[in-house]
Amino acid sequence: MSIGSTVPSSPWTLAQRAARMNPSIIREILKVTEQPGVLSLAGGLPSPDTFPIEAMREATAKVLAEAPREALQYAASEGFGPLREWVAAQLQRQGQQVTPAQVLITTGSQQGLDLVGKVLVDAGAPVAVETPTYLGALQAFAPYEPIFTSLAGDAEGPLPEALARLPHDAPGTRFAYLLPNFQNPTGRVMPEARRQALVQAAQAARLPLVEDNPYGDLWFDEAPPAPLAARWPEGVVYLGSFSKVLAPGLRLGYVVAPAELMPKLLQAKQAADLHTPGFNQRVVYEVIKGGFLDSHVPTIRTRYKAQRDAMAAALAEHLPEGSEWSAPHGGMFFWIRLPAGCNAMALLPGAVAAGVAYVPGEAFYAHAPDTRTMRLSFVTLTPDEIRQAVGMLGGVLRRHLNEELEETTP
Amino acid sequence: MSIGSTVPSSPWTLAQRAARMNPSIIREILKVTEQPGVLSLAGGLPSPDTFPIEAMREATAKVLAEAPREALQYAASEGFGPLREWVAAQLQRQGQQVTPAQVLITTGSQQGLDLVGKVLVDAGAPVAVETPTYLGALQAFAPYEPIFTSLAGDAEGPLPEALARLPHDAPGTRFAYLLPNFQNPTGRVMPEARRQALVQAAQAARLPLVEDNPYGDLWFDEAPPAPLAARWPEGVVYLGSFSKVLAPGLRLGYVVAPAELMPKLLQAKQAADLHTPGFNQRVVYEVIKGGFLDSHVPTIRTRYKAQRDAMAAALAEHLPEGSEWSAPHGGMFFWIRLPAGCNAMALLPGAVAAGVAYVPGEAFYAHAPDTRTMRLSFVTLTPDEIRQAVGMLGGVLRRHLNEELEETTP
Repeated sequence: MSIGSTVPSSPWTLAQRAARMNPSIIREILKVTEQPGVLSLAGGLPSPDTFPIEAMREATAKVLAEAPREALQYAASEGFGPLREWVAAQLQRQGQQVTPAQVLITTGSQQGLDLVGKVLVDAGAPVAVETPTYLGALQAFAPYEPIFTSLAGDAEGPLPEALARLPHDAPGTRFAYLLPNFQNPTGRVMPEARRQALVQAAQAARLPLVEDNPYGDLWFDEAPPAPLAARWPEGVVYLGSFSKVLAPGLRLGYVVAPAELMPKLLQAKQAADLHTPGFNQRVVYEVIKGGFLDSHVPTIRTRYKAQRDAMAAALAEHLPEGSEWSAPHGGMFFWIRLPAGCNAMALLPGAVAAGVAYVPGEAFYAHAPDTRTMRLSFVTLTPDEIRQAVGMLGGVLRRHLNEELEETTP
Repeated sequence: MSIGSTVPSSPWTLAQRAARMNPSIIREILKVTEQPGVLSLAGGLPSPDTFPIEAMREATAKVLAEAPREALQYAASEGFGPLREWVAAQLQRQGQQVTPAQVLITTGSQQGLDLVGKVLVDAGAPVAVETPTYLGALQAFAPYEPIFTSLAGDAEGPLPEALARLPHDAPGTRFAYLLPNFQNPTGRVMPEARRQALVQAAQAARLPLVEDNPYGDLWFDEAPPAPLAARWPEGVVYLGSFSKVLAPGLRLGYVVAPAELMPKLLQAKQAADLHTPGFNQRVVYEVIKGGFLDSHVPTIRTRYKAQRDAMAAALAEHLPEGSEWSAPHGGMFFWIRLPAGCNAMALLPGAVAAGVAYVPGEAFYAHAPDTRTMRLSFVTLTPDEIRQAVGMLGGVLRRHLNEELEETTP
């Protein structure tokens, strides 16, 4: 096996782009941390207590009773018509101008990222991302060999100036990939003014946006402002997901795209897997069509908010002085910056040995990772477990800082 | 919107590869032919009468009762362990040396084609295909911008000489894509001797093979010879599917790859959709684990064989002199070569107006299509409908040939 050339021992030659594919560091970490006895704050796994199992039972029985032949047959690459209509109606309610014809159902929103990369990214073309950003998006785009540009940002998201400078700094940038709501990994949400400023800068620069919104429904205090796509429909591709509000194991997401992009996205979808399982689409439609999410999502919010509160309190109690974070107003993650002298990756083995796991933040940077950062998920463990886990993490950090102090003190 | 350059009216720039994506001609034809009153021989849709609806009901209920949280949660990118073990055991029975670690569960075998293209094909690299070949594979590989080489063949498959000449004719060919069993679209099956000769030629040329086997279980008279992968495990990627033996709407397939390719295929899979729906994998495993297919697949064979026989008899009765075909020994398709003066694409609108649809064969060629060919599916319609449809098709062809004769007779 070789990249771009042939080695006598193997008949296979890998594509150049294979060099840009890497094992997910999170995946590798999850493997290590899936030991019994380790409390994991690493995974971004929704709490299975929120999965609507009874509703799924009823819906699968209904689909298999009423339309089994249609549900099990090949189906349209665009997705199941009524589900596309539901998505369009739902987005209209949050202010987006969307017709069902602009909705493409995907096999999880991860596939939406892959299709966007396939249709929009050439080798060597710049793609702008937040600093830090969602690792899965870097992995989805990377095989199409872009040059990533990291947008400078603050607690409210990327800086509009950074976007405005792109035509100069990275001419030909294909799009900026943005997560306005409770971003993975930082948990930050873009306020109304930042959204306005970013869209204005993007329009002025003729720079399209790819807006990823898996967490928008998981707000604890107030709903986030209207999406970027509502402000510039022809310049934004919008990605949504059922993974966080229903269940990820169904692999159901969607892409909403300007009409001009739909034919190529659809052709890419067809080439990728013909269509998303029709059975899953019909079952989910059956679950949600009567307004199920209107009562279900608030129960998730309540649960996650309590877990967020537990983690906020535990962090305040246990993290060493000099640690920085702010409590997220939604989503699934705390983002921590450790005191000087702490390297989150280097500290991980000791933490796992002590019984707690997290994801080092460096995984989420396209460039120049801040090695003092870490991502903690608060949705998988119970509040009691969260307190215990954060307590252990605090102990690991304090011991490390004390040892450092001893070493540097004569 | 533009390809490789920016047009003022749109902020979007498409990737170069988008120019290689095209609407599926079959899909366009299916749209036209989905009119009420048209008997369609066009689609490659398995008969829904074969879908194991009762077994699906039991299996979904069982999965949602016994492991709902696991089935609905994020899962491993490789696939559900017991299903991977089942696939490996099943392939071992047909002579392949396969471990579960070599099995990657995919979202239909179409995704397997996409992942193979992603990992193995560079822009400008040659990829060899049969003449004609599966349209979906051309669509899956095309976005990776290969140069297709069409392998000359006969009724037994591609010619070993054509494979042997590839290092000279198309140096650097990444792989030859072959469908040994009841090929789509021709229905042809490679006999034992041809398989041996092709693998020998491939080994001598150090040319890897991608073997696609969606139809191998659908034999009517005798099981086909052992797969190519059994003869050269380290040089063959093998693709399988549950679409034809259970139901396509579940989108479940698999890739079996030499160990050296697995890491990159897995990384490509993870980037593409994280994992195939765990719910679907567990339900299918529940359906098949007790040997269900051993009794189920023979019922599909019996049904399709009767439909094959009905079509063979109807073709003999109704097709005009000079038409060429041979009855397939398995699979889903007849491949017809019409008499001189017939263009299958040009004749399609008239056929649809008369109430019968088919797929013009030219869709299946990478180069130099034979415009006199057409593909007829015999698995979707009943024997009575098949007789009626072929009767109408014969009428359309005879009228056309008579008109031609009148025009050319002074």
